[in-house]
Amino acid sequence: MKELRLGIAGLGVVAQGLLSIIQNNGQLIAQRTGTWLKVVRVASRTEKPEVDLLGASFSKSVDELWKDPDVDVIVELMGGVDTARDLIVNSLNKGKKVATANKAVIALHGDELINDETTGRLKFEASVAGAIPIIQMLQKALVANQFAQIVGIINGTCNYILTAMQEKSLSFDSALQKAQELGFAEADPSFDIDGIDAAHKLTILLSLAFGRPFDFEKIYVEGITSISEEDIRYAEELGYQIKHVGIIKNEGQLLEARVHPALIPKEQLLASVLNEQNAVHVKGDSSGDMLFSGPGAGSLPTASAVVSDLVAFATDDEKPIGETNIVESINESSYELVSMDRVCVPHYLRILTEDKPGIMAKITSILSEFDISIEAVIQKGSGISLSHVSVVILSNAVRESVMREAVANIENLSEVSQGIVDIRIENMSQKES
Amino acid sequence: MKELRLGIAGLGVVAQGLLSIIQNNGQLIAQRTGTWLKVVRVASRTEKPEVDLLGASFSKSVDELWKDPDVDVIVELMGGVDTARDLIVNSLNKGKKVATANKAVIALHGDELINDETTGRLKFEASVAGAIPIIQMLQKALVANQFAQIVGIINGTCNYILTAMQEKSLSFDSALQKAQELGFAEADPSFDIDGIDAAHKLTILLSLAFGRPFDFEKIYVEGITSISEEDIRYAEELGYQIKHVGIIKNEGQLLEARVHPALIPKEQLLASVLNEQNAVHVKGDSSGDMLFSGPGAGSLPTASAVVSDLVAFATDDEKPIGETNIVESINESSYELVSMDRVCVPHYLRILTEDKPGIMAKITSILSEFDISIEAVIQKGSGISLSHVSVVILSNAVRESVMREAVANIENLSEVSQGIVDIRIENMSQKES
Repeated sequence: MKELRLGIAGLGVVAQGLLSIIQNNGQLIAQRTGTWLKVVRVASRTEKPEVDLLGASFSKSVDELWKDPDVDVIVELMGGVDTARDLIVNSLNKGKKVATANKAVIALHGDELINDETTGRLKFEASVAGAIPIIQMLQKALVANQFAQIVGIINGTCNYILTAMQEKSLSFDSALQKAQELGFAEADPSFDIDGIDAAHKLTILLSLAFGRPFDFEKIYVEGITSISEEDIRYAEELGYQIKHVGIIKNEGQLLEARVHPALIPKEQLLASVLNEQNAVHVKGDSSGDMLFSGPGAGSLPTASAVVSDLVAFATDDEKPIGETNIVESINESSYELVSMDRVCVPHYLRILTEDKPGIMAKITSILSEFDISIEAVIQKGSGISLSHVSVVILSNAVRESVMREAVANIENLSEVSQGIVDIRIENMSQKES
Repeated sequence: MKELRLGIAGLGVVAQGLLSIIQNNGQLIAQRTGTWLKVVRVASRTEKPEVDLLGASFSKSVDELWKDPDVDVIVELMGGVDTARDLIVNSLNKGKKVATANKAVIALHGDELINDETTGRLKFEASVAGAIPIIQMLQKALVANQFAQIVGIINGTCNYILTAMQEKSLSFDSALQKAQELGFAEADPSFDIDGIDAAHKLTILLSLAFGRPFDFEKIYVEGITSISEEDIRYAEELGYQIKHVGIIKNEGQLLEARVHPALIPKEQLLASVLNEQNAVHVKGDSSGDMLFSGPGAGSLPTASAVVSDLVAFATDDEKPIGETNIVESINESSYELVSMDRVCVPHYLRILTEDKPGIMAKITSILSEFDISIEAVIQKGSGISLSHVSVVILSNAVRESVMREAVANIENLSEVSQGIVDIRIENMSQKES
């Protein structure tokens, strides 16, 4: 029986989940894979660990992990960026293998961390979409495919909040508060609700699916703070759910990579992914439309993904598929990221305007000037005052730069209030039968 | 650059899909994996192949594949059972590797084909759920998990027919005819609509998830021929969709393995998987509830799964994980399959009865005698005659043997017509938030 000797950095929820899986299912995993996962050393700033370390030594410095000759694999579960990066660099330099659940460190430092020297020694399945093995999907199971489109609900906090607004008719603030109470949102939630976390994850998917560098700063990012319950109701009435998604689209050799709220047609599976669940829709040229859904975070689900990396270390070749040539393919990648201006999708607009004769004509003639056609329109009392109405318009596919200008012109109308709500519509083309 | 030399048996749709992927994406696959997929020889009964064989030799006998020293991997895409089995046995004996999309041959001969000599040399990702990499999920990505439940829509023909009945209000016969016109059902559809195909696939999932022998004959099987549009409407009214599913449940060390139609609550993702799509819901003790959906058949999707096996051959260890110890774990498996009599789930009953005073009392008192409680009831005109009504009842969870006896007693009432419809209800417990 082979033994894989682990040094675990951090003792938070994911590390505790990992210890618990090894304790409960270690024997099953050994039976299935021929490898024992043995925890040799755990390091954390905790004064005295209060969980069972399964006989491992305890250190307060993570440096003792990579310095320990008895440790084969460093499992980085501390979070944060700088200290995690240093630990990973030191561990890899020392010849260790590293598994991490840390999306930020991969998204921001992936280009430095993954190179000819380290290829195959750094795995990060748990960094995107928790228990969903999306990285193995892209690198192994779907290796035959050119990817046309990847659309993912990859932030559980946003999905929880939007679901709560929809199903429990809560305001954004109340939904956020409920998410915090249930542990689905941090005390400072900005990282999640502003879309940064999703953009980290999308950076990783973009790099793996298209052999690109880890281009975090090139990804367009919007959060969900501007979404109101009213928009969720209108979207519903029009046959859509509002989801916060990360999107990669491949048109020819041009790639779009963007994170923002979007109206998803109700009949698509992605629209039915609720609460804190994550899901990734992948369209491959051979596989067709695939959806993978599951818990995107949490102690045991994230640790489940970490274990799959550990087992892969124990059983794969030195140069496992997918990672074999990631460095080469990054250098050779012929894909180009297009600027947001060139993205062309249908839009949902909600316009708050005084209820005066002729206002609809003014709005629609502006849209018409910009060659924007109207696919659906709703006009209703705004609920704010008797003198105002909400006009909701679904447009055809329009270039971002054109829509921005049209919206600015509509906002210039004296009857129209500032702050037109503009949400993109994502229509993953699915085969009709 | 490594080269994997393929001998392809068969020239049907999946083989053509494989050739097409290699032609179009062969270079991409090589770039990602460091391995060229080279088609050395193709064998088929076709007089003269009409597709581009990418420079491969052509034989009319599949024996020339395993006899060819230039072939590393035999790709069995002929279908059928006996000839396929012989080809696989000969190829493995000759030391070749084999990838197959053939669920029947694995379900029926898996125990013979997978043994200490052959372990790791036979792969069959494409045999279950087409493009969905459910085998790699169970064996690799979710290796940390004990599986509590696996519920799959694993026959595209049945799912297409049930969806068409639901969405286009077709009778079973018309829906079947439409499926045949579109190529989603065979001229002789019995293999699919009687549940045999799904049972083959469930046999494979059962073996891989629980280290069981390939127990095809022990799986309980019902098809969809008794489902009427009326049942689909009632189910909808009660908040359910009728799906044909393969189910494995693990309670303690007791396993249920059964294939039959079931009412699935609408809020569960599985209920929204439409048309010819497949999906597998997996509940792991660490991962939680996961759903994987995608095309369950077809030329390119199935070939996409075959390619993932080929690439795994090219890059994995001799003894890849999951298959490493499949033989040992089969011998050691402590799981026991329970008989159908002991399965205990809620039921949907539709009873056609004369519209006479007191009949409801008679039916409910029989149920009460058997300690069966009623969760919901609908009584409506039957649409068949003015003198008859349909009584639809949802029960609590009841042992199969008890329900069978209760149904027999109700059928004995003089007012009740023969042929009570009895469909099980599957409630995958999902976390409420």
